[in-house]
Amino acid sequence: MTLEPPPSPTRRADAERNRAKIMAVARTAFAESDTEVSMAEISRRAGVGMATLYRNFPDRRALLEALYTDEVDAVCGATETVIGGSPGALLIAWLHRFFAFSTSKRLIASELLTHADSTSPVFGESRARVLVSGRPLLAAAQRAQEVRGDLTLEQILDMIVAIARIPGDPGYLEPILQSALDGIRLPTAVEQS
Amino acid sequence: MTLEPPPSPTRRADAERNRAKIMAVARTAFAESDTEVSMAEISRRAGVGMATLYRNFPDRRALLEALYTDEVDAVCGATETVIGGSPGALLIAWLHRFFAFSTSKRLIASELLTHADSTSPVFGESRARVLVSGRPLLAAAQRAQEVRGDLTLEQILDMIVAIARIPGDPGYLEPILQSALDGIRLPTAVEQS
Repeated sequence: MTLEPPPSPTRRADAERNRAKIMAVARTAFAESDTEVSMAEISRRAGVGMATLYRNFPDRRALLEALYTDEVDAVCGATETVIGGSPGALLIAWLHRFFAFSTSKRLIASELLTHADSTSPVFGESRARVLVSGRPLLAAAQRAQEVRGDLTLEQILDMIVAIARIPGDPGYLEPILQSALDGIRLPTAVEQS
Repeated sequence: MTLEPPPSPTRRADAERNRAKIMAVARTAFAESDTEVSMAEISRRAGVGMATLYRNFPDRRALLEALYTDEVDAVCGATETVIGGSPGALLIAWLHRFFAFSTSKRLIASELLTHADSTSPVFGESRARVLVSGRPLLAAAQRAQEVRGDLTLEQILDMIVAIARIPGDPGYLEPILQSALDGIRLPTAVEQS
């Protein structure tokens, strides 16, 4: 029995670059097109062979799940990258980020639903992770009395997801989101802009 | 050829009473049950014969449409029955009424969709009528600077429908609605309660 040598640092870096390239291309492709983008098309646009594509993502569903999980990671990570501002402003900024996720993931999520059923652990785990990430932000904003205390994070996120699902372009949805987010701030904390 | 005599006032009153009884029973039956309530069950509960039921509503779809239209009439009429209060308070009261309609009509509307397609004129006409009814309320509240000027009635109603569709009991949904409605009021007009 022969042992394969471990991949060299260069080869590992190549592999990571390929994976990142595939993800980036797939993200764009799914965002700009309502129709199913084929794996062949993704391989072509990413400039990687079909073998490389399938080594990274055994099937379309694996690719969709990776994109979805990647987006959830970004939302969860965004609680740390927002710098400065009051606890209320931090929460609101993060909720805007969550809204962007909720609209952008719509296409991926709905496609994922055709490949997995809606009880797929990907969805349930994502919600749990987002809740864990956001809870400290809401608690801090409520402690600072900048945000109303009669809403849970579940209620706030459900409201945002509901707004993200309203049919319409960003110009139609943004003012609705803005209004809804003004509503969660306590009256004394609303700044005139 | 013999002409039938016109119905006597008593018979006409009886007919109206029967129709109202059927509608009331059907409204309750649909509200309390997720399962399809049969026409026979509605006839039994209303205490009218099947012949009377079918004379009023030739089929299940006709009954559902009548219930739906009845609810829309009530929402449209509610702009006139709200008495007193500032223009902003009038609008908010009417939006609460619309929310109640949006949650209660959910069952009827979804059942109606199985009997008619979603492009059924019943839905489009209802939306148009509700918009016509609410527009003067919003205009007055915006003129009084009690409600933000950057939202159209379409946007406000879409937000309320979206919230009404969030899965959850009234105790879960009410605070979300309250928060969203606080958001459409201008900061200076939010009263501390």
